[in-house]
Amino acid sequence: MPTGRLAGAVPLRPPAAALGAPDVALAERLFAGLRAGTGDRGGITRASYGPGEAFAHALVRQEALSLGLEVHTDAASNLYMTLRGRTAEPGLMIGSHLDSVPCGGNFDGAAGVLMGLSVVSGYLRAGVVPPRDITVMAIRAEESAWFNASYIGSRAAFGLLDPSELDAVVRSDDGRSLGEHVRAVGGDPAALRARSASLDPARIGLFIEPHIEQGPFLIARDAPVGIVTGIRGSFRHRRAACIGAYAHSGATPRTLRQDAVSAIAALVVGLNELWRRLEDAGEDLTVTVGQIATDPAEHAFSKVAGRVDFSLDVRSQSDDTLRDVRTSLYRLAADIAAEYRVGFDFGPLTDSRPAVMDAGVVAGLAGTAQALGIAAPLMACGAGHDAAVFANLGIPTGMLFIRNQNGSHNPDEAMDIADFAAAAAILSRFCLSCEGSRP
Amino acid sequence: MPTGRLAGAVPLRPPAAALGAPDVALAERLFAGLRAGTGDRGGITRASYGPGEAFAHALVRQEALSLGLEVHTDAASNLYMTLRGRTAEPGLMIGSHLDSVPCGGNFDGAAGVLMGLSVVSGYLRAGVVPPRDITVMAIRAEESAWFNASYIGSRAAFGLLDPSELDAVVRSDDGRSLGEHVRAVGGDPAALRARSASLDPARIGLFIEPHIEQGPFLIARDAPVGIVTGIRGSFRHRRAACIGAYAHSGATPRTLRQDAVSAIAALVVGLNELWRRLEDAGEDLTVTVGQIATDPAEHAFSKVAGRVDFSLDVRSQSDDTLRDVRTSLYRLAADIAAEYRVGFDFGPLTDSRPAVMDAGVVAGLAGTAQALGIAAPLMACGAGHDAAVFANLGIPTGMLFIRNQNGSHNPDEAMDIADFAAAAAILSRFCLSCEGSRP
Repeated sequence: MPTGRLAGAVPLRPPAAALGAPDVALAERLFAGLRAGTGDRGGITRASYGPGEAFAHALVRQEALSLGLEVHTDAASNLYMTLRGRTAEPGLMIGSHLDSVPCGGNFDGAAGVLMGLSVVSGYLRAGVVPPRDITVMAIRAEESAWFNASYIGSRAAFGLLDPSELDAVVRSDDGRSLGEHVRAVGGDPAALRARSASLDPARIGLFIEPHIEQGPFLIARDAPVGIVTGIRGSFRHRRAACIGAYAHSGATPRTLRQDAVSAIAALVVGLNELWRRLEDAGEDLTVTVGQIATDPAEHAFSKVAGRVDFSLDVRSQSDDTLRDVRTSLYRLAADIAAEYRVGFDFGPLTDSRPAVMDAGVVAGLAGTAQALGIAAPLMACGAGHDAAVFANLGIPTGMLFIRNQNGSHNPDEAMDIADFAAAAAILSRFCLSCEGSRP
Repeated sequence: MPTGRLAGAVPLRPPAAALGAPDVALAERLFAGLRAGTGDRGGITRASYGPGEAFAHALVRQEALSLGLEVHTDAASNLYMTLRGRTAEPGLMIGSHLDSVPCGGNFDGAAGVLMGLSVVSGYLRAGVVPPRDITVMAIRAEESAWFNASYIGSRAAFGLLDPSELDAVVRSDDGRSLGEHVRAVGGDPAALRARSASLDPARIGLFIEPHIEQGPFLIARDAPVGIVTGIRGSFRHRRAACIGAYAHSGATPRTLRQDAVSAIAALVVGLNELWRRLEDAGEDLTVTVGQIATDPAEHAFSKVAGRVDFSLDVRSQSDDTLRDVRTSLYRLAADIAAEYRVGFDFGPLTDSRPAVMDAGVVAGLAGTAQALGIAAPLMACGAGHDAAVFANLGIPTGMLFIRNQNGSHNPDEAMDIADFAAAAAILSRFCLSCEGSRP
């Protein structure tokens, strides 16, 4: 039975005890242990392949062993904890990461691992044998704040790490290479260098990643849980600039100005209009100019600005939308450049591909939530997650988001355990429904 | 006769020799002397009450004495050089300043003083006695880069300097007070403290300040000379901020954002639309957001911006327009704050009053230019000048702008001597036309 108050107006109708309701008390105990072991007043720090992550992996492994799960690690020191089901393959996987950003929050990815353990512990308590093997995976090194590389643990599990990354990618706090760090926690960099894989996409029936939401969508929707339809891909111009010409603010007529501030303002307004238009047409999109600055060495309140530096981050679940927005962006910028007599230099482009969640998994999770009377709207995921690696390998993949106050990646991150319980109830019931070769 | 090539398509028809065409060679010689005495490869530096300004005053005084003008200085060490006319009062005055910003250009205000000397030398060469006394005034300390106070020399000449300024206002490079600097060049701070005036507005028939243009208007209009209709007043918010909330760029929906960048972009676009509308309605205006920045300690390309700092500088020849724009600004900001869920904190307000040039002087200069076949469009002046002090005391005042490349207050400032000659021709002819008690 879930413990704690369930937020929102809709009461949780827990699954019948015979189905093995999640062991939420286990999760509460482990959250407390994680906080005690990896937190201080500045927040939670569990560096990828660092002591905080090691503490978390040890804590979770000990719990899995106590539950009688089969436990092993792979060459990247990802941790697998398996409850045997009525049939072995293709097995179900529930997983997320245990590392955190520096001075982050306690829940972020850890909620996904602890939810997996809550679910299997619930089955064990009730003597329920699930239809298929269920493996809870604690993934290494998801937070790119540490190694500036995405999805290290999950890519390594599939043999997808580029061998050069083991030497070239270094941790931001100590400058030591990824390979050294893998070895230091007992992993096997030589095996990773040989691209040996511990997971085979063909032998995974589905992968579910529970994670706290990293935005305010579920709060706004007054819902404890969200069912993710896709992880947004992105394109980014992190170091773009608008180049105009400095001029006297009082002596330069409007039509003779080359005003970089006016031009970038027109670009931001134009992009927001484009966003609104595409959203109205049903397309998924976020557009963000998060950094903007005139040049402190040159600007003055009495000068027309000759330069503005800025960043642009565009995300969507749809490759097509990303491509269309890029085309529109450059066309809009060219029009504005002509109108304002400025130039745009967008600088380097980086991008990432969207990952679509499996329609069957999404429908199954949504149907289960409905059956349980839990409000669980469909939503896009704006940040990257290990689930993207699984989805892009063709594994039927889903994500459950747990409502979260105050954003993520900061010490004020806050999750109500009742919301966790609601998500765990959906996951527990859903896993029991997964019969057959693939769900 | 003017020397040098006349820019633009319209040939200068010089006044008949009998009228005493300006002695442009004198100005060329003095410009060269000023550059030699106060310039280096980093530009021209003539600090207010500093050695460069003293050099310029000495050079000009020596020239005036050579021409046989009556020369004297006042308590602020402003320099007066008078050619007697057929009647004494109310006399005509031609003047500007000889100081420069640090690493500035050679022409700025100096062109005004040298033009006055060129005009009277032209009369003397030709034996022309002007209808009234003409006094060329070399004004002290106009560039507020040095003392952070406006119009020190011209205000002092009218006894308008606040005595406290002599002690409280210090020079930016050496920290010594204005009073000390006045004494160091042979002035009389005690007389200034007693508010003794060397000029009486009632005894000045008109004041003309020739000056290089500080913007690109005349280049765009392909005209060598501009006739100023008014000096713009201003209101300024030098340290304004838009306050929103930081949020995840990929996980925060458009309608839940409190995006300070989007809000300030909307404000800039709205202000530019307001500017265009008022300009179309015939109002004089400039609107400039010259400084803009997200917070480097908090911003990120993947965060919605929670704060943008910015400056705003609004100028107009009309007090009414300035008041209307302020009202519109705050209304527009309130609308944007509501729409974008942000707040605006405009911070301290500073302002200055417009100064209107005398309609008779403007018409007289324009008519003279037309008679001479010199293109001399009417234009607003966007920066402050000593002429504002004269105009706001009720003295019939005008300004002649000389076309200038590359802006002002920088070493690349550039004036074609032919354009100077065209302006001098207008001024020379105009002064001869000033009969009667006031023009």
